[in-house]
Amino acid sequence: MLGKVALEEAFALPRFQEKTRWWASLFATDPAKHAAEIGDVAETRLNYMDKHGVGHTVLSYTAPGVQDIWDPKDAQALAVEVNDYIAGAVKAHPDRFSAFATLSMHNPKEAAAELRRCVTELGFKGALVNDTQRAGPDGDDMVFYDQPEWDEFWSTVTELDVPFYLHPRNPTGTIHEKLWAKRSWLIGPPLSFAQGVSLHILGMVTNGVFDRHPKLQIIIGHLGEHLPFDLWRINHWFEDVKKPLGLSCKRTIREYFADNIWITTSGHFSTATLQYCLTEVGADRILFSIDYPFESFGDACGWYDDLKLNEVDLKKIGRENAKKLLKLPDFKDCNA
Amino acid sequence: MLGKVALEEAFALPRFQEKTRWWASLFATDPAKHAAEIGDVAETRLNYMDKHGVGHTVLSYTAPGVQDIWDPKDAQALAVEVNDYIAGAVKAHPDRFSAFATLSMHNPKEAAAELRRCVTELGFKGALVNDTQRAGPDGDDMVFYDQPEWDEFWSTVTELDVPFYLHPRNPTGTIHEKLWAKRSWLIGPPLSFAQGVSLHILGMVTNGVFDRHPKLQIIIGHLGEHLPFDLWRINHWFEDVKKPLGLSCKRTIREYFADNIWITTSGHFSTATLQYCLTEVGADRILFSIDYPFESFGDACGWYDDLKLNEVDLKKIGRENAKKLLKLPDFKDCNA
Amino acid sequence: MLGKVALEEAFALPRFQEKTRWWASLFATDPAKHAAEIGDVAETRLNYMDKHGVGHTVLSYTAPGVQDIWDPKDAQALAVEVNDYIAGAVKAHPDRFSAFATLSMHNPKEAAAELRRCVTELGFKGALVNDTQRAGPDGDDMVFYDQPEWDEFWSTVTELDVPFYLHPRNPTGTIHEKLWAKRSWLIGPPLSFAQGVSLHILGMVTNGVFDRHPKLQIIIGHLGEHLPFDLWRINHWFEDVKKPLGLSCKRTIREYFADNIWITTSGHFSTATLQYCLTEVGADRILFSIDYPFESFGDACGWYDDLKLNEVDLKKIGRENAKKLLKLPDFKDCNA
Amino acid sequence: MLGKVALEEAFALPRFQEKTRWWASLFATDPAKHAAEIGDVAETRLNYMDKHGVGHTVLSYTAPGVQDIWDPKDAQALAVEVNDYIAGAVKAHPDRFSAFATLSMHNPKEAAAELRRCVTELGFKGALVNDTQRAGPDGDDMVFYDQPEWDEFWSTVTELDVPFYLHPRNPTGTIHEKLWAKRSWLIGPPLSFAQGVSLHILGMVTNGVFDRHPKLQIIIGHLGEHLPFDLWRINHWFEDVKKPLGLSCKRTIREYFADNIWITTSGHFSTATLQYCLTEVGADRILFSIDYPFESFGDACGWYDDLKLNEVDLKKIGRENAKKLLKLPDFKDCNA
Repeated sequence: MLGKVALEEAFALPRFQEKTRWWASLFATDPAKHAAEIGDVAETRLNYMDKHGVGHTVLSYTAPGVQDIWDPKDAQALAVEVNDYIAGAVKAHPDRFSAFATLSMHNPKEAAAELRRCVTELGFKGALVNDTQRAGPDGDDMVFYDQPEWDEFWSTVTELDVPFYLHPRNPTGTIHEKLWAKRSWLIGPPLSFAQGVSLHILGMVTNGVFDRHPKLQIIIGHLGEHLPFDLWRINHWFEDVKKPLGLSCKRTIREYFADNIWITTSGHFSTATLQYCLTEVGADRILFSIDYPFESFGDACGWYDDLKLNEVDLKKIGRENAKKLLKLPDFKDCNA
Repeated sequence: MLGKVALEEAFALPRFQEKTRWWASLFATDPAKHAAEIGDVAETRLNYMDKHGVGHTVLSYTAPGVQDIWDPKDAQALAVEVNDYIAGAVKAHPDRFSAFATLSMHNPKEAAAELRRCVTELGFKGALVNDTQRAGPDGDDMVFYDQPEWDEFWSTVTELDVPFYLHPRNPTGTIHEKLWAKRSWLIGPPLSFAQGVSLHILGMVTNGVFDRHPKLQIIIGHLGEHLPFDLWRINHWFEDVKKPLGLSCKRTIREYFADNIWITTSGHFSTATLQYCLTEVGADRILFSIDYPFESFGDACGWYDDLKLNEVDLKKIGRENAKKLLKLPDFKDCNA
Repeated sequence: MLGKVALEEAFALPRFQEKTRWWASLFATDPAKHAAEIGDVAETRLNYMDKHGVGHTVLSYTAPGVQDIWDPKDAQALAVEVNDYIAGAVKAHPDRFSAFATLSMHNPKEAAAELRRCVTELGFKGALVNDTQRAGPDGDDMVFYDQPEWDEFWSTVTELDVPFYLHPRNPTGTIHEKLWAKRSWLIGPPLSFAQGVSLHILGMVTNGVFDRHPKLQIIIGHLGEHLPFDLWRINHWFEDVKKPLGLSCKRTIREYFADNIWITTSGHFSTATLQYCLTEVGADRILFSIDYPFESFGDACGWYDDLKLNEVDLKKIGRENAKKLLKLPDFKDCNA
Repeated sequence: MLGKVALEEAFALPRFQEKTRWWASLFATDPAKHAAEIGDVAETRLNYMDKHGVGHTVLSYTAPGVQDIWDPKDAQALAVEVNDYIAGAVKAHPDRFSAFATLSMHNPKEAAAELRRCVTELGFKGALVNDTQRAGPDGDDMVFYDQPEWDEFWSTVTELDVPFYLHPRNPTGTIHEKLWAKRSWLIGPPLSFAQGVSLHILGMVTNGVFDRHPKLQIIIGHLGEHLPFDLWRINHWFEDVKKPLGLSCKRTIREYFADNIWITTSGHFSTATLQYCLTEVGADRILFSIDYPFESFGDACGWYDDLKLNEVDLKKIGRENAKKLLKLPDFKDCNA
């Protein structure tokens, strides 16, 4: 379909070009191409978008980004730099590009203030954060956003009425190193990414974040990491065992998915899994996305455009849900 | 349906009755009932089986069991005790009960020898092991069975032509304690169990265990932990990225699922998820199970008996696959 | 769920009590009960509704009804009588009951006028018609509403902005009698009903009714008769073969389903089929219904209330879609 | 996948070339190409098979064929001619081609004898018949094979242990002409074909054919015509209403599908529908097929080869089920 919206789409800062290239060599089969693509927020991307029917892209700073910087001042400085940079870049094509704020997540008040600046002054559509914030003197601590001190931040998110994308990050500090050392092929998309985000989201559920912020809208990629598959089992244990034993969250996991959680197709172009998510999550809560340049426009859009899905949901997932959630301005083929 | 087979069904040693009761208080809404049920391998269980159409139960020692004992001698002694105990118990009802071997997994040679004894002398149907083996002077190390030193053990498993059930265990030592402390409701069935087993199975895949033991048959519960949901994504990253970068396993993740891996319905009585697994895993590789007494016969069998599924797969999943895999003798309603 | 809406729910005229009972003896296992239930539009029905969480019922005159009367005057007289009768009956419980107009379909102008009267004067929510109208001197002709002379009628339907429910009718005159005589068990719900309505709907598609009346909203029961199953195949033949050979309808079958056609769950309480329809038709176009008293509240509501479906679609299918389509007033648990 | 088997694959007699061309002009967008393709049972077909990974094709005489000939003698003469012709043709490539017998269905004894000749003397794999046999002095009668006089024929089919493919035919004489005249775009694959075969199969069910011939194996194309979609509803009405009222067939519709009926993918290359059939019919009863040259190798095989389905069922549906059912000799890539 034409006029699709994509919203897990990464960029890198031009001044880190060398580092980006080295980084790409760790996971990309063609690191030079990857580095070139992630550095571009203009012609290359627009060409892909035109060719593959993507009307609008929401850009976000690539993982692990600021979440890997354990010095709070450095983290904040980089966040501000990134936001100013991408605000400038999207101005050239306001109909085709918009941005999610990059945030240092060391301090809830500071994160809230930067988000407010990005949304009210720079016109950003929300925030994208790469899982836990590395912290501590040696970067060995991790900040989760499911504790009470983050209520101030979540209040700002809901007040600004923007979604928050919880993206995976490279698991430095978040996994049991000894376990993963001999299983390093599983770090990243095959396993650790989804394990990290699944834990964080369920932490938010069990620690009452959604109860205290019932309007909060969280987006997770890769068709919901591992959560849709286990909705029945999580629901069963929460309702039948854990709540009788003291778990205090107010609603069911299915209700949080209905009211607070969105999933995107980023990096998970599976027809069977999407159909399963239609049942377990529902088309009103699913958003098309690519995960470019970690995934290709061709793989994502080729799959989506060939999908034999009812036309109503095809448009909702491909564009209409995102238009509404992000209050997007008119863009190419936005009524196609 | 009548004559179902169930194979993730736990028992405890009578002499640990006190400990079992205390343990149950951590997760059961009715600890006394749980302790009574898990201690019984006779009337209570047979009554449930008769009432709910289960013809045959394969018994296994409850988790974490021997995998929690980091002293190798103690672990081996307990394994032998457990095996001798349950061998005696199932003798009373050879058509209704059989057993999986309990193994100390400190030493591949010792584990292989005990498995051989259980299968050839005691008539056991395979082994059930609770994820990694706790080890080291303080129990802080974990033994995975995906390293080359375990080839000897896997050779014995395939030579004996029996399946190996990789069951979750309580994650002492296997998770990053700091991360989970404030998310303790997620320890166990809601999240950590599936994360642990998923890592272990994919470790076996990426470390070549199935390539070196192409006839090895591994069973995992809970509809495959988190793996079926991500088959597309794992396959995509393994084939398109990781193998070009050096991952050396020979076949695709879908081929290992077709040739080496079985999933059971234990604790995951979800119609939508089972239907999804029919597509991603296939009815020939799915086995009914309950996870009694952590789950109830009523929940599991009520769900299964009400399933509107084609009759061929209903029988395969409910009984025929297990009969063949475990070479079961005739039992109640085994031809129903 | 509470506050469900049901909209393929039949009543009979009290003065035909004898005939109703005889009729029931042809297909009901308990004809007396059936006759009593279909004759009631008050306590019996409200009790069932309260017990099974149905907040609102849209009543319609039972098939074959007026469509079986080949004398145009008699048909029109009965339609008016039925409409006046049920208008009076629903007045007693305006929040719990509403009605679909019964129409004689001999003459488009007359049908349009009676529909207008029912909607504007009696507050009806649309019309329900039982497939083709029997006509001709001996009742051997059948009137389809897919021919140009019916444009006047469809213009009124869209002008009034109400849906039209195309319900099956007993196939007198519509099937090849010789073929069905020795297959009479297949007449009705097992086969002939769906074959009749499927033909009629596709006749409307291929004869351009939806092209000339793009706002027309047609409801069909039984999860879409046979059409959702064949959407791919119909689409393939229409687009790839028939249109090149001259079929002139403007849009694709999938687009007509997205814009003009609704399906209900009446008499088809199948989880697998509903899930399939989520993919092929989409939750925004599916409406809960029972088909009482041909089906029971217990079967329909027991199934629906046990469904493990995402909460968003559960509410849309169970109530929200109907509330919007029919512009229903507040009713019991309508916000539950 | 390589080495697929296809079994609803049509050929025409060379001596009817003119008629074939005229016929093709009624439904093919390129009649000359169609006529050339259907006339070939050698190079053209083998090229397609090689290019698209089809190892073996079971050929059958194109519809309506002998079923359209109401003179019994002419019908029998043509059947014999067709069978002798195709027996000669497949001899040239015994590993790549085999055949289904063409039968005149005027007389059960004669049909049985010709089938026996074809299977025992010519090595045919079963029979393919195009729905009802036109009969009567003017061709206005239709012979169904669900009446007791056909028991003799079905006994021969089961004795020979070969399957019988019930293929649609053009509905001359089988539909209510008045109804379809203004809906002629629906004649054929969009609607009438499936309606005809669905009636015939359910006629066999309700008239006890499968009860009297419990080993009978019937194949139907197009993913089961309309039957899988309605299995729940048919089962509900048969078991809960019709049997109490006197329907006498012994087993349930789901049991007949499990034991007696196969479906093929011919002309229905829909991923969603196939997945639904995995649940309702089961992979053990589904067979890949194309319906060439009415459908193209590219459409069918392109779809199947791109399917993301578990490897076990992929091979069963693509080849293994057919190999077993038809007892096929070794052919190209038959172990791939």
